[in-house]
Amino acid sequence: MSGSLIVVGLGPGTAQWITPAAQAALDAATDIVGYGPYVDRVPERVGLTKHASDNRVEVERAAHALQLAADGRRVVVVSGGDPGVFAMAAAVFEALEAGPREWLNIPITVEPGITAMLAAAARAGAPLGGDFCAISLSDNLKPWEIVTTRLRAVLAADLVICLYNPISKARPWQLGKALELAAEQRSSETPVLFARAVGRPDESLRILTLAEAVTAASTADMATLVMIGASSTRLIAREGRPPYVYTPRSVAKMPCATSQGRT
Amino acid sequence: MSGSLIVVGLGPGTAQWITPAAQAALDAATDIVGYGPYVDRVPERVGLTKHASDNRVEVERAAHALQLAADGRRVVVVSGGDPGVFAMAAAVFEALEAGPREWLNIPITVEPGITAMLAAAARAGAPLGGDFCAISLSDNLKPWEIVTTRLRAVLAADLVICLYNPISKARPWQLGKALELAAEQRSSETPVLFARAVGRPDESLRILTLAEAVTAASTADMATLVMIGASSTRLIAREGRPPYVYTPRSVAKMPCATSQGRT
Repeated sequence: MSGSLIVVGLGPGTAQWITPAAQAALDAATDIVGYGPYVDRVPERVGLTKHASDNRVEVERAAHALQLAADGRRVVVVSGGDPGVFAMAAAVFEALEAGPREWLNIPITVEPGITAMLAAAARAGAPLGGDFCAISLSDNLKPWEIVTTRLRAVLAADLVICLYNPISKARPWQLGKALELAAEQRSSETPVLFARAVGRPDESLRILTLAEAVTAASTADMATLVMIGASSTRLIAREGRPPYVYTPRSVAKMPCATSQGRT
Repeated sequence: MSGSLIVVGLGPGTAQWITPAAQAALDAATDIVGYGPYVDRVPERVGLTKHASDNRVEVERAAHALQLAADGRRVVVVSGGDPGVFAMAAAVFEALEAGPREWLNIPITVEPGITAMLAAAARAGAPLGGDFCAISLSDNLKPWEIVTTRLRAVLAADLVICLYNPISKARPWQLGKALELAAEQRSSETPVLFARAVGRPDESLRILTLAEAVTAASTADMATLVMIGASSTRLIAREGRPPYVYTPRSVAKMPCATSQGRT
């Protein structure tokens, strides 16, 4: 029997956002490997072995999955969101690159999923209507100076900015610092989304100004996707309901430094 | 009867990447509105009216959809990929903002989808393993100088760069120019993906070096997603099959200017 490995994106939470291709991979698996909360999303069934691991052991987890596949199992590695976006796909290829040559014979497939920024954007309206970027705020895997260098570049380029891994117990101040950097270059009225647990029962969507977001940074958590609008991002007010947030597709010119900025 | 409007992402092409939530919206619609090729993907059925329109009339199309919803229809606006990424969601909110106040009472929902860069990344391995951006190369909606300003910024910041709308009959030279800009700042060996029609029967994935991509720019088309690797993006060779492309999650430091760059 020849094994295989599929890296599957479960989407942000609800089964309604799991693609049929991802579901088919889950249904055919003999082994599910992943971070505990994602493995928990896959129902138990006869013939399925679940291997849950702690957070922050991604490459060890990936190597374990590759070895199971090399041993002939049909292995699915699960990620939340999309596996290619700050998730398990890169860890699998890191483990593959460092591992025994025979692993190169394992058929490896990546099944895309709905990543958090797409889900958050959909809930808010169309904040990703223009050019945008996705940056992980975690400085576990890169120096903080690289994070700030990148933030300054994309702020100057007026991209909408999606911040993954914005905050954790071990990284309590980075999000506040990132939002302060944004406030140096963008208007204090710029819309900022704190989209938490989108697609799950405890979903919440907060639409703040950049000035409010700086103050509220510590109220975000690891389940929050933070999105900082571009200079053209704006609100459409509605009676009795939160406004829509959207970024027009057209750009007339680059913004000038704001009155808040570069003083 | 009270109408509604749902903006749905059909994903890149295969039904295996349409989420159950998107499918449910399609199944409940009375009217499908969109660009012809996307409307064609939705099967005919009794009770469903399809309204196909030409390309580049997005806001008129969106206004038509909003009026149908205001008239009490259950309208679905279809986009390829994700509707929030260079697609119909922003056009709907532009039309809403410019339209009659009564349209604000229409329940509007956006259903996310698998956008082209996630599908292309999945096919290649894990090229989006680090920070990345999505930029539309079309200068129909923004001046070309903004495109190049943004490209220079994200090149300097060492992000992986996903180029949407890379080329068309009316915009034949922009992709070549963008790749030349990239070659000024990144190594000529940087992996570049030309991912065409991913998820469709005529799918093709080409893995080039940046130097090759500059030469091959005119072989891309509107169905191609172009992805330019970061300095750390690399290949894992396999016998008899194309290499995997991946970007490690870790970044040690910002790259220096290459021997090709900034001369």
